[in-house]
Amino acid sequence: MATSITIEALTAQAFADFGDVIEANEGDGFGINQGFTWRHHKLATVSTDQPTDDAIISIFSSKNRPAPIAINMMERHPLGSQAFMPLSATPFLVVVAKAGPEPTLANLRAFVSNGKQGVNYGTGVWHHPLLILAPQQDFLVIDRAGEGNNLNEVMFGEGQCGQLDVTDLINKLTNSRE
Amino acid sequence: MATSITIEALTAQAFADFGDVIEANEGDGFGINQGFTWRHHKLATVSTDQPTDDAIISIFSSKNRPAPIAINMMERHPLGSQAFMPLSATPFLVVVAKAGPEPTLANLRAFVSNGKQGVNYGTGVWHHPLLILAPQQDFLVIDRAGEGNNLNEVMFGEGQCGQLDVTDLINKLTNSRE
Repeated sequence: MATSITIEALTAQAFADFGDVIEANEGDGFGINQGFTWRHHKLATVSTDQPTDDAIISIFSSKNRPAPIAINMMERHPLGSQAFMPLSATPFLVVVAKAGPEPTLANLRAFVSNGKQGVNYGTGVWHHPLLILAPQQDFLVIDRAGEGNNLNEVMFGEGQCGQLDVTDLINKLTNSRE
Repeated sequence: MATSITIEALTAQAFADFGDVIEANEGDGFGINQGFTWRHHKLATVSTDQPTDDAIISIFSSKNRPAPIAINMMERHPLGSQAFMPLSATPFLVVVAKAGPEPTLANLRAFVSNGKQGVNYGTGVWHHPLLILAPQQDFLVIDRAGEGNNLNEVMFGEGQCGQLDVTDLINKLTNSRE
């Protein structure tokens, strides 16, 4: 039987071991454009392993998974950071473990973004692929392109799997849209 | 009296001289994440002048300007690209001129994004600061940080100014929300 993983609210402090939370906080930048724009400056920096690597911009179009969501693998990018910014203001989930040795279920942390928060996974930070609550959601993704293998995966064995109990979150989302 | 600038629909082809249009087109990438995500891959690349420069991620919170919108200046970033992705699916405007000598009114092109399209201005491409149609709109911005001056501006003289007649676009937006 899968073990439930507690879902925490996403905050910069709680997420500090894993990367940056990309969100506009009041007063965290400066005014530009003759006063018509506020720049929430440098909320995250793209990390790339080699000076010849590129930072690239993509769009990920994601579909939801059956609830409860099974967590049976994690991945990491050893050569660069990876940022995800939701293109619609809908809550989604983030499951992470610190950079380092392959994580086990006991090392995982799960967070829910309020939909206006994106995340930037630090280089080598273990994370689960996109986990959305709506049927469909798009993200702007900023990550690294270049030579070398930038993907490692760990698969959990039977009995080592986690699950996210998302029914309440999905109901809340559905109700907020009615 | 200001001269009206024609507003064109934003397409990758029409925008090719100025940079990339960041949008998800069907079939332009590949499936990942056990089939739950489609990666619209490498829609834009962040350009930075020096290998020691960083690609950084910020949020710009913009307010609208009075209609008709006066165009009396342009700016460029000589040391890097700058990408703008709307975080709400609301149309906005883009005014550009090719990289090179300071533009005049006759060199400007104006485009309207459908709200799901972002843009990545190429290095040195002249552009007007954010021009939105809604009262307020946020954008994810990916640009360059590093040493050196990365901003040039040109101010147009009296009688050399342009304007964007946006009343119809704003009415259309307002009606679509009612």
